[in-house]
Amino acid sequence: MTSLLKTIYSPQDIQNLSLKQLKSLADEIRDTIIQTVAETGGHLAPNLGVVELTLALHRVFNSAVDRIIWDVGHQSYVHKLLTGRQVQFATLRQYGGISGFPKPEESIHDAFATGHSSTSISAALGMALARDLKGDPHSVVAVIGDGSLTGGMAFEAMNHAGHLKTNLIVVLNDNEMSIAPNVGALSGYLSRLRTDPMYSKGKDEIAELLQKLPHGSKLLKVVDRLKDSFKYLVVPGMLFEELGFTYLGPVDGHDIKAMMTMLQQAKTVSGPVLVHVLTQKGRGYQPAEENPDRFHGVGPFDVATGTVKKSGGGAPSYTEVFGKTLVKLAQEDDKIIGITAAMLDGTGLNSFAREFPKRYFDVGIAEQHAVTMAAGMAMTGYRPVAAIYSTFLQRAYDQVLHDVCLQNLPVTFALDRGGLVGDDGPTHHGVFDIAYLRNIPNMVIMAPKDENELQHMLKTAVYHSGPVAVRYPRGNGEGVPMDEELQRLPIGKGEILREGSDVLLIATGNMVRETLKATQSLSAQGIEAAVINARYVKPLDEELILDYARRTKNVVTIEEHVLMGGFGSAVLELFEAAGLTDVKVKRIGIPDEFVEHGKQNILRANYGLTAEGIIETVLSKEFEFKKCRKLKAVRGKRN
Amino acid sequence: MTSLLKTIYSPQDIQNLSLKQLKSLADEIRDTIIQTVAETGGHLAPNLGVVELTLALHRVFNSAVDRIIWDVGHQSYVHKLLTGRQVQFATLRQYGGISGFPKPEESIHDAFATGHSSTSISAALGMALARDLKGDPHSVVAVIGDGSLTGGMAFEAMNHAGHLKTNLIVVLNDNEMSIAPNVGALSGYLSRLRTDPMYSKGKDEIAELLQKLPHGSKLLKVVDRLKDSFKYLVVPGMLFEELGFTYLGPVDGHDIKAMMTMLQQAKTVSGPVLVHVLTQKGRGYQPAEENPDRFHGVGPFDVATGTVKKSGGGAPSYTEVFGKTLVKLAQEDDKIIGITAAMLDGTGLNSFAREFPKRYFDVGIAEQHAVTMAAGMAMTGYRPVAAIYSTFLQRAYDQVLHDVCLQNLPVTFALDRGGLVGDDGPTHHGVFDIAYLRNIPNMVIMAPKDENELQHMLKTAVYHSGPVAVRYPRGNGEGVPMDEELQRLPIGKGEILREGSDVLLIATGNMVRETLKATQSLSAQGIEAAVINARYVKPLDEELILDYARRTKNVVTIEEHVLMGGFGSAVLELFEAAGLTDVKVKRIGIPDEFVEHGKQNILRANYGLTAEGIIETVLSKEFEFKKCRKLKAVRGKRN
Repeated sequence: MTSLLKTIYSPQDIQNLSLKQLKSLADEIRDTIIQTVAETGGHLAPNLGVVELTLALHRVFNSAVDRIIWDVGHQSYVHKLLTGRQVQFATLRQYGGISGFPKPEESIHDAFATGHSSTSISAALGMALARDLKGDPHSVVAVIGDGSLTGGMAFEAMNHAGHLKTNLIVVLNDNEMSIAPNVGALSGYLSRLRTDPMYSKGKDEIAELLQKLPHGSKLLKVVDRLKDSFKYLVVPGMLFEELGFTYLGPVDGHDIKAMMTMLQQAKTVSGPVLVHVLTQKGRGYQPAEENPDRFHGVGPFDVATGTVKKSGGGAPSYTEVFGKTLVKLAQEDDKIIGITAAMLDGTGLNSFAREFPKRYFDVGIAEQHAVTMAAGMAMTGYRPVAAIYSTFLQRAYDQVLHDVCLQNLPVTFALDRGGLVGDDGPTHHGVFDIAYLRNIPNMVIMAPKDENELQHMLKTAVYHSGPVAVRYPRGNGEGVPMDEELQRLPIGKGEILREGSDVLLIATGNMVRETLKATQSLSAQGIEAAVINARYVKPLDEELILDYARRTKNVVTIEEHVLMGGFGSAVLELFEAAGLTDVKVKRIGIPDEFVEHGKQNILRANYGLTAEGIIETVLSKEFEFKKCRKLKAVRGKRN
Repeated sequence: MTSLLKTIYSPQDIQNLSLKQLKSLADEIRDTIIQTVAETGGHLAPNLGVVELTLALHRVFNSAVDRIIWDVGHQSYVHKLLTGRQVQFATLRQYGGISGFPKPEESIHDAFATGHSSTSISAALGMALARDLKGDPHSVVAVIGDGSLTGGMAFEAMNHAGHLKTNLIVVLNDNEMSIAPNVGALSGYLSRLRTDPMYSKGKDEIAELLQKLPHGSKLLKVVDRLKDSFKYLVVPGMLFEELGFTYLGPVDGHDIKAMMTMLQQAKTVSGPVLVHVLTQKGRGYQPAEENPDRFHGVGPFDVATGTVKKSGGGAPSYTEVFGKTLVKLAQEDDKIIGITAAMLDGTGLNSFAREFPKRYFDVGIAEQHAVTMAAGMAMTGYRPVAAIYSTFLQRAYDQVLHDVCLQNLPVTFALDRGGLVGDDGPTHHGVFDIAYLRNIPNMVIMAPKDENELQHMLKTAVYHSGPVAVRYPRGNGEGVPMDEELQRLPIGKGEILREGSDVLLIATGNMVRETLKATQSLSAQGIEAAVINARYVKPLDEELILDYARRTKNVVTIEEHVLMGGFGSAVLELFEAAGLTDVKVKRIGIPDEFVEHGKQNILRANYGLTAEGIIETVLSKEFEFKKCRKLKAVRGKRN
């Protein structure tokens, strides 16, 4: 069988395909995506759901001129295959390969970089308004899922677009899910639109009925006077209509022809239009159809069975330990509440949700609301734990600041994916949290050195009288023994893990292990390093750090986080406040640049966030050690 | 005439008043607010609009048990007068006096602190859910303006509340304005609800009509089958109903009795209910009724004439200079776009809006959307300037990071009110912007030393190839001469303003003037200070700063901003990176606490952000000067 896909170098190449050929191309695309993601991992189910939709979009719109913006962006694989990136497709999400998200640097067909949800309508409206100013005729299309529509900024954008009445096409990719099944009243509304014939098919019947009314009848007069209201009967999608959008749909998102017809119609509508497309997440791959959650974002798996390949190590992930610990705490305290913003699985709240359904809240993709709702609960005596990835809490900075910290409320932020997340890349690395949280008064920030410390920190956080953020990395724990009894750790106290008089290494979170590793080799080279596990980024253990800094005169800070405003800066601030000037400090962390996608170990090595990197820094010329002679020899060898 | 108001110590005291007495109390409250705000300044028009609404709320609900959350909070004056704070009311917004916003520390009747918009429904939902868990019976009420409803998080909260179906009362205070007249499709919808009889009064007529249909008629059968759709005809406020809310209203927000009846009804509704209340901003004070924008937030004014008292100095405000400069730039370049989030006046965009209506966009209270829309425009070749107060840009941290900086797009953020804003207090001080922006790669941050530098910086920002934030303070400029010709300042270059060999003072923004002032007195005491106007917080002028730091060995940084992660920390980071250890540094700024309300000069003095404070720091024991003898004498005198 010859490959159709291999003949597609740009969307131009699908313009002359027959419907039958398009269908066969769709099959081939599905197969390519399944085979590739089985190797690379990635967002499988969302992409399988939009194969036909993407083909229809590229038939009706010219993405070199028209602009197609993929909300959240993880459903852009089909688009990438159609826009000149099929050769590189095997490098998907690999270091140096193509990104799993739209990226304007990769292709002119990627109109806007996305990664977090609910931005597409705003970006599209900006482009549409710019187009109007220029007097250009092209279309601007935002493709947004029903899950992303629960994010408030999507509503802000629709409200504005409906007001301005500029031409703008919003394609609502309605699969009844975000990552997990959707929550929210809007989701109920969409479901009524899908299933209630009065919403979708009542139009003709009513129109017919109205025409049958006798001329001059009282009823007709009333109908006439009420005609605006009758729009509610004859126009489906009235909620969108009230927001100034023309509603078209619903249309079967796996029927290429029907979608092409409706998208053509959308192109001719004046003003903003919403095209309601019904798709099935995971479509065409049975394991994904049956478990769209599990196959939303997935690691390498076996295509035949759908079994996800285990990633070796038996240590539980930080996420699992968080989830288990929260259940344990909640069993003993009915004031503990678990909150997620549409990330039940990802945050590890599953068992909490099962065991305490009344104290579990999934707010949908709505981090702002999640944080302020938690503040409301904390205000009335509860102990809410908002489990939100580090990168997603960026969405709620103001709410953390005002609604939680200004009122000094006991909300715990469980910041999973703190640090480099790997394959998802720059939109998902959680490398800004220390910097954006540290400046907020009343905030306490912890980072556990291992999964055992995580469980103690979680207990400490939940019973602290004010806000706490606990930051922990993506991936497996260290495999350390887990204490049975949970302890509260004293706030603002670090721990000294190794004594040494030559240099003080202060590490935070998962960098503690690498730091300890480095000391062995350093010791072999005659340099004895003291190691502090900071535990607290804020407040710092000032006494402990100053004591050892004064003794060693050489200090290295290590954090998986940006250097600007990060943990190391907090240490510099401490030294300044304490008037310590005869101490040399080097900070290891991420420099002032966005970090690409790639395996965590590759990225960590790039930034010296490894034992080797730490050794290198300690051996650098910056530091002067008492045992100069030996060091000189070492340095000589290295240069 | 005896005062009724003086007999009100708590909301209990209004329970037995007759309707007539309530009306007379309303007059007295209006008068008190007008007289007080004429002295103190404050949010006049919003409070005049909610006098009757607040009375009705306190008649129907017991705010010691029920919880009333005032969205945005600047309309809580009436509430404060009724809840035991009338004696302190004259201290409104004064240093040490009562706040202009709800503050739980002030009163048990203040259920939640607010200041920024659109948070109330989230907080109320959190409290309602907590109440349900406890099994308490009380009501939770969010009072939110139609302006605040355009903020996305209000939608997030409604979507969630409508889904959960918990008892929750949202009072929509619809005055057809935010600060300026409202924008947005939702605003159009509300206006149709207000004015179209089919929305508000069609209910009875249709119900009557349907009852008259003959039994067994075909029409009745259809009607029966379509009954869900017919809800659209008989139920007004269907948009809210679709989101799971029961809609009640609209009701006249100046008719106490009608509101009491409707709020009582709302109390009995099961599930979330929205009460649509129509109020008039500025009600009862003619100048405010005629100019509700101008009297939204107002300085001291003459009650008889409504003339706002001029605040002495003739220097134009930074806001005015920003507005004028943007017009000037836009006259020469049609790619420049002005964006505000419902702050036309406050940001100084008025003349730009008048002169370039097609390039001016007010998105409503929707900072997230504003930023990403700007990114969309920048992506297509435009040069958008988003004029958003420092404190409000906190709402869009993630959008700044992802949509603008990750794509390195040329969006200019005009951060007015950078620094201490004064009377509005902790929710409005713009003292976190350097910390939350500095950690973002590609971001350039400028702060002008005076209004002349602001105009050059704005030109520089608009023509920079990536994102720029220009941070400037609330209030008048320095009164310096304004250059005719706008210049582009080299990126990352500061300027040396004074030579000196004893100590280096590095100041940012409005602190430059105080720093220069301090040098005179220091010089008189034998200490010659070099002064650098940093101009750029990021990137720093590394060469210039290092050069002078090496020469003086003593460095003081001065910023009107929090110390944690601020400008001074950037200087510490620079010294660390450069391996400078023999330099003593002291950073002047705001410590790790929330700053109360009060006049800017009082607050600045509190934190040493004055010439005196700078002198004190320089003379502190931390520094060693070559001319020790003279300094010792000075220090001796001071101790």
